[in-house]
Amino acid sequence: MMGWIRDLFPIHRSLSGPGTVETLNYIHNLLPQLTLHKVPSGKKAFDWTVPNEWTFREAWIETADGEPIVDVADHNLHILGYSEPIDAEMDLEELDRHLYSLPERPDAIPFVTSYYKRRWGFCLPHTKRRALRPGRYRVRIDADLKPGHLTYGELILPGETTDEVLLSTYVCHPSMANNEVTGPAMAMALGRWLAGRDRRMTYRILFLVETIGSIIYLSQHLETMQARTKAGFVLTCLGDDRTWSFMPSRLGGTLADRVSTHVLDHAVGDYDRYTFLERGSDERQYCSPGVNLPVASIMRSKYATYPEYHTSDDDLDLVSADALAQSFEVYRRVIEAIEANRTYRNVFPGEPKLDARGLYPDLSTAESGLTVRAMMNVIAYADGHHDLLSIAEIIGEDVLVCAEIAEKLVAGGVLEPVKHGDRNTVSGDLHNQD
Amino acid sequence: MMGWIRDLFPIHRSLSGPGTVETLNYIHNLLPQLTLHKVPSGKKAFDWTVPNEWTFREAWIETADGEPIVDVADHNLHILGYSEPIDAEMDLEELDRHLYSLPERPDAIPFVTSYYKRRWGFCLPHTKRRALRPGRYRVRIDADLKPGHLTYGELILPGETTDEVLLSTYVCHPSMANNEVTGPAMAMALGRWLAGRDRRMTYRILFLVETIGSIIYLSQHLETMQARTKAGFVLTCLGDDRTWSFMPSRLGGTLADRVSTHVLDHAVGDYDRYTFLERGSDERQYCSPGVNLPVASIMRSKYATYPEYHTSDDDLDLVSADALAQSFEVYRRVIEAIEANRTYRNVFPGEPKLDARGLYPDLSTAESGLTVRAMMNVIAYADGHHDLLSIAEIIGEDVLVCAEIAEKLVAGGVLEPVKHGDRNTVSGDLHNQD
Amino acid sequence: MMGWIRDLFPIHRSLSGPGTVETLNYIHNLLPQLTLHKVPSGKKAFDWTVPNEWTFREAWIETADGEPIVDVADHNLHILGYSEPIDAEMDLEELDRHLYSLPERPDAIPFVTSYYKRRWGFCLPHTKRRALRPGRYRVRIDADLKPGHLTYGELILPGETTDEVLLSTYVCHPSMANNEVTGPAMAMALGRWLAGRDRRMTYRILFLVETIGSIIYLSQHLETMQARTKAGFVLTCLGDDRTWSFMPSRLGGTLADRVSTHVLDHAVGDYDRYTFLERGSDERQYCSPGVNLPVASIMRSKYATYPEYHTSDDDLDLVSADALAQSFEVYRRVIEAIEANRTYRNVFPGEPKLDARGLYPDLSTAESGLTVRAMMNVIAYADGHHDLLSIAEIIGEDVLVCAEIAEKLVAGGVLEPVKHGDRNTVSGDLHNQD
Repeated sequence: MMGWIRDLFPIHRSLSGPGTVETLNYIHNLLPQLTLHKVPSGKKAFDWTVPNEWTFREAWIETADGEPIVDVADHNLHILGYSEPIDAEMDLEELDRHLYSLPERPDAIPFVTSYYKRRWGFCLPHTKRRALRPGRYRVRIDADLKPGHLTYGELILPGETTDEVLLSTYVCHPSMANNEVTGPAMAMALGRWLAGRDRRMTYRILFLVETIGSIIYLSQHLETMQARTKAGFVLTCLGDDRTWSFMPSRLGGTLADRVSTHVLDHAVGDYDRYTFLERGSDERQYCSPGVNLPVASIMRSKYATYPEYHTSDDDLDLVSADALAQSFEVYRRVIEAIEANRTYRNVFPGEPKLDARGLYPDLSTAESGLTVRAMMNVIAYADGHHDLLSIAEIIGEDVLVCAEIAEKLVAGGVLEPVKHGDRNTVSGDLHNQD
Repeated sequence: MMGWIRDLFPIHRSLSGPGTVETLNYIHNLLPQLTLHKVPSGKKAFDWTVPNEWTFREAWIETADGEPIVDVADHNLHILGYSEPIDAEMDLEELDRHLYSLPERPDAIPFVTSYYKRRWGFCLPHTKRRALRPGRYRVRIDADLKPGHLTYGELILPGETTDEVLLSTYVCHPSMANNEVTGPAMAMALGRWLAGRDRRMTYRILFLVETIGSIIYLSQHLETMQARTKAGFVLTCLGDDRTWSFMPSRLGGTLADRVSTHVLDHAVGDYDRYTFLERGSDERQYCSPGVNLPVASIMRSKYATYPEYHTSDDDLDLVSADALAQSFEVYRRVIEAIEANRTYRNVFPGEPKLDARGLYPDLSTAESGLTVRAMMNVIAYADGHHDLLSIAEIIGEDVLVCAEIAEKLVAGGVLEPVKHGDRNTVSGDLHNQD
Repeated sequence: MMGWIRDLFPIHRSLSGPGTVETLNYIHNLLPQLTLHKVPSGKKAFDWTVPNEWTFREAWIETADGEPIVDVADHNLHILGYSEPIDAEMDLEELDRHLYSLPERPDAIPFVTSYYKRRWGFCLPHTKRRALRPGRYRVRIDADLKPGHLTYGELILPGETTDEVLLSTYVCHPSMANNEVTGPAMAMALGRWLAGRDRRMTYRILFLVETIGSIIYLSQHLETMQARTKAGFVLTCLGDDRTWSFMPSRLGGTLADRVSTHVLDHAVGDYDRYTFLERGSDERQYCSPGVNLPVASIMRSKYATYPEYHTSDDDLDLVSADALAQSFEVYRRVIEAIEANRTYRNVFPGEPKLDARGLYPDLSTAESGLTVRAMMNVIAYADGHHDLLSIAEIIGEDVLVCAEIAEKLVAGGVLEPVKHGDRNTVSGDLHNQD
C-alpha cells in the first residue's frame, strides 16, 4: 500500500478536474473491475447541484519586481480549492484578504476550499504571511471553473447473496496522507483481496469525492442500497499508528457497529469511541435521516483530532507500512466476521451427543468439561435467534473462533444454518435497515 | 406573587367551608376565566364520598378562672381540622387526650386534621402543652360540620390542539406557606402568562382541595383527561430556596418526566431526584393505576422532607420572591419546551445544502464546521421518529435552543413538522397515555 | 433430611443399575405418590441412545502375592464408573494406564466415569498410586454392562391450574454428599411439604440420572413441559454452609430467575451470581435451545467451585442439618412466592378510601402516612400489568409481605386478581416461554 500512497500523494485532487480523474484511472489500473462514472455539472442530486468542473493549471504570487512569494508548483495546498482565475496586480492590503494561514500552526500550509461560492485565494504558512512587506504584488491563477463533469469510481463484487457490504472512501484532497490517500489505498487493498476470494456478501466499493460525491451516488442508488446494505464503512485516516478510533452509525446498534466494536475489542483492545455527534466524513450522508444506512467507521487517528489534520503536515511521514498493515488486518477481520455471521440452530433439542460425532472427549473428569466449553457455549445459544456475533458477545469469544466451531458443528450434523426469512427467525441485527 | 401569598396566607382554609371559598374567590378576581364548581356533601366519587362542609367560627381553651390558654384567633393551626363543636369543662387529663403537639419540634404548632372521623382537638407547641397545670379547663369550639358543598376552581385555556397540559394545585391548608400558598400563587402566575400567549396545547389549571378534590375532579373528567393529557404537573412547595426536587410519575418516562428532567438538567443542574415511592400530593390520584396520567412535580424543598413542614414554622419567612421567580422560570421553560416539542423530518435525503438556503458559512476550513454543529445535529436526528426533546437529549443541547434552530430550518425549507397520526411516525413519548 | 442423606450416601449409584434403583425405591417409600419409570437400553432420545445397564458387584486390585491395594468395598469411588469387567494379571506399567488420581488433591479419590466408551479403571489417592512398586498385579472387576434399563422417578402434584413448577434433581453419583444426596433429600422434603398443602401450581418433581436422564424425560414430555412450565429449578449442592450461589437460566429474566434473585436478595443478602456460561447440571438440557424452559438453580457451594467437588472428600462432614434447613427455607420461600405471584388490579380509579374499609388510620399527621406506605405502594402498582413480584421489586418489599397485603386488600374489596388471559393483561414474566 505504501507504493500506491506515494504515487497518489502528489496528485492535485479536488471535487472534480484532471487530478481526481488521474487518481481514479490509477486505481482502475490496479482494480480492473472498477467502473468510472461521469456526472454533468448542473445535475440535481437531492438538495444539491453538481458544481462546475475545476481545471487547475498554475498559480503563483510574486512581488512587483518578480520575486516569487508562493507557487502552487511547490505545494498543492497553496491554492484555495476551486479558486476562480485571476491575473492582476494589487497592494498587500487587498492581497491579504485572499490569504489563509493558521496562527496556531504557523509553519504549516492549511487546506481550505470554496467549492460553492466563487472566490480566489492562496494558503500559506502564517510565518510567511506575516513576513510579507507592504507593496504591490502580482497574482496569477490559471484555472477554469466551467461546466464539465464530476467523476467517481464504483466496484461491485457480487457474492452468493445480494446482501451488501459498503466500503466507501474519498479522492478529493490534494497532497494529504492520513486523511486522504490511506483511504483509497485501503479500499484498493481490500478490493483486490475480496476479488480473489469466495464471497457470501456482495461488496459495493466506492471511490467518491466527499459530500457531493456520496450525495450524487445515493441519489442514483438509494432504494437498492437501503434494501441491500447490511453494513457499511467509511475508509479514512488509516495510516498513522498513534491510536484506534471508532465512529458509530447515527443510532448505533447496526451490524456495522456491532462487528466493529467486536473486532476492535478482540483484535485491538483499547480504542477511542466517538459519538455520531463527532462525525465528519461521508457517514454524514449515509446515516442521514432519509438515507439511514448502517454505516460506521474504524480509523486510526480520527480526522479533526490530530494536530496535522487538514494541513501540509499531514504528509507521508505520518503514515507507515506497519500501521497500514494493522488497519488492513482489522478490516479483514471485520469482513471475515460479516461473512461468517450466520444464524444457526440446533438440530436436536437437548445437548447433542458430541462424542458419538467425534466432537467430544469421551472420558469425563472434573476438568475435562472445561476444554469443550466454547463449543458447548456456541451450541447453547445457537437457537435460531442469535446470530453468530451475538453468540460471540454473550460467550466472550472471538467471532472468528466461533465461526470455526460453528462450521465444525455443521459438518458434524449438530447445527444447521437458518435460512434468511425462515419462520421464527429473528436476526441479531434487529436495528438494521432492511 | 409575594403579594398574593401574603393575602392568601392568613385565610383559614380546609377541605371545605368559607376559607376555601374565600381563597377561590380571591383567585377568581385575578384570573377571570376561572370557573368555580360546587359538589354537594354525600356525592360519591370513585371509592369516596364528599364529606360534610366544615364552617369554623371560633375555638379556644381557657382555665376554669378564665385565663386564656389557646385561641385559634391567634393561629389557624391551633384547631384540629374538621373538629366537631364542643362547649364543656373538663380536667386536664381528659383535655390532654384532645391535644396534639410535636415533642421533636417543641415550639411549633403542628398541622393535624381528622376529615373522616368525628373528633375535636387542639394543636399547640409541645412546650406549652407540658406547662399546663392539672385542673379544670373550659373548652369551646364553635363550628358546624353538616351537609353543604365542596368547592374547586377550574381554568381551561384552549390551544390550537386539544392535547392538554394539566397544572394542578391545592387550596386546603390553613396558614402554611411553602407547602400551600406557593402552589396556587404559581398556578395563578402561570395561568395569567399562558392566557396572554399563543398556545399549541390546551391548559387545564385546577385549584382543588388535596385528595378528595382531585378524586372528585377525576371522577367527573376521567375519560377526557386520559384521552388528552400529554403532561401534567402538581404545583406545590415552590417558594423556599434551599434545593430543587423532582417527583417522577408512577412508571416514569412520560413527557412530563422527560421535559422536567431536561429543564432541571439545563436550567438548574443539581437537584434531588425522588422516586414515586416518596410521593405525597395529588400525583397519588393522577398516577393511580385506574387513572394513570403522565403527571410529575418539580418542587423546591419537597413536602415531608424539610423541618418546618406541616407546622406553624412553614410561614412567610420561609419563602422569597427570588425563589418564586426561579420556580416560575423553570415552569415557564417546561411549558415552552412542551409547546416546542414537535417531531420534524428532513425534506431531503442526505444533508441539505444549507449555504444555498442562507443557513451555512460558505467557506470551509478546519474550524468552520464547529459553528454549525448544533444545526447539523438537529438535522441528523430529525427523522420523523425522534421528537425535539429526544433530539435535544441525544445532541446535548437545550431543547429551547433546538426549537429556535428547528424553526429556522423549517423556514429554510429543510425540515417539516410531522403531523400527528402520520404513517411511520413514532413520537418520542412512547410511554405517554394516549 | 440428615437421616435420608446418611441412608442414601453409601449406595453405589451410577447411570443405571441396582444402586440407582435402590435409591429410587428408598425415595418411593417416603414419597408414595412417586412413580418409577424404566427405559430400555438402545432407546433413542433426541441425539442420544439409552446405554447398557451397568451392574456392579465387586472390584479390587491386589499384588501378585495377594496383598490388597484397592477394593471398591472400601469406597465406591474406587471404580471408574461403567467399567467393563476384567480379571487379569499385568505389570504396573499396564495397570497404571487404568488408574486415575488427582496430583493436586493427593489424598482424595477422584470421581471418574466412562459411560459411553468401553473402558475399565480404578480411582485412588495420588499418594497411594505413587507408592505402587513395579511388579505384577491382579485386577478383577466383576460387573455386567449389557442391555437392561435406565430408571427414573417422577412425582406430579396437581394444583388448581396446570401451570407447572419443575423441581429436578439427580441420583447418579455414588457416595458424594453436597453434590449428590443433598439434591434428592431436598426434593423429597419439598415434595412432602407440597403434598400436604393447597397448591395453585402443579409441581413436577423429577429424580433422574444427570444428562441422559433429563434428555430421556424431555424427549417424552417436551411439548407438555414447554406449554406448562412457568419456572423450574435444578436441586443440587444444597448442604454445605460456606456460601450461596445462583445459576440463571440461559437468557435470564424468566420467572425462575426473578423469583430466585428476589428471595436470595431478601432472605440471604449476599450470594455468588454465576452466568449460564458456568452451568454444569441439568439446566444444560432444560435450557438448551430446542427445549428452552425457564430453569434456574439456587445452590450453596456450586459444583466445580469447591475443593472437595467430585472427590471422596465431598462426604457427610461437608453437609449439616443447619445448612440443609436454610436451603429448605429458601426454596420454600421461592415456592411460596410463585404461589403468591398473581397479578392484581385496583377496583377503583384513584386511591381507595382505606379507612372506610378498616384498612387505614383515620387520623392524619405528618408521620402517620409512613405506616401505610407498603400498602399504598402495592395499590399504586396493582394496575393489572405488574405481577406481584414486579411490584415487590419496584417498591423494595419482600414479595411474601406484599402477598399478605394483597390478600388483605382483596378481602377489603380494593384489589381484584386479574384472570389469566384477561384483555389488557400483560403478566410480569414476559420472558417466560409460554
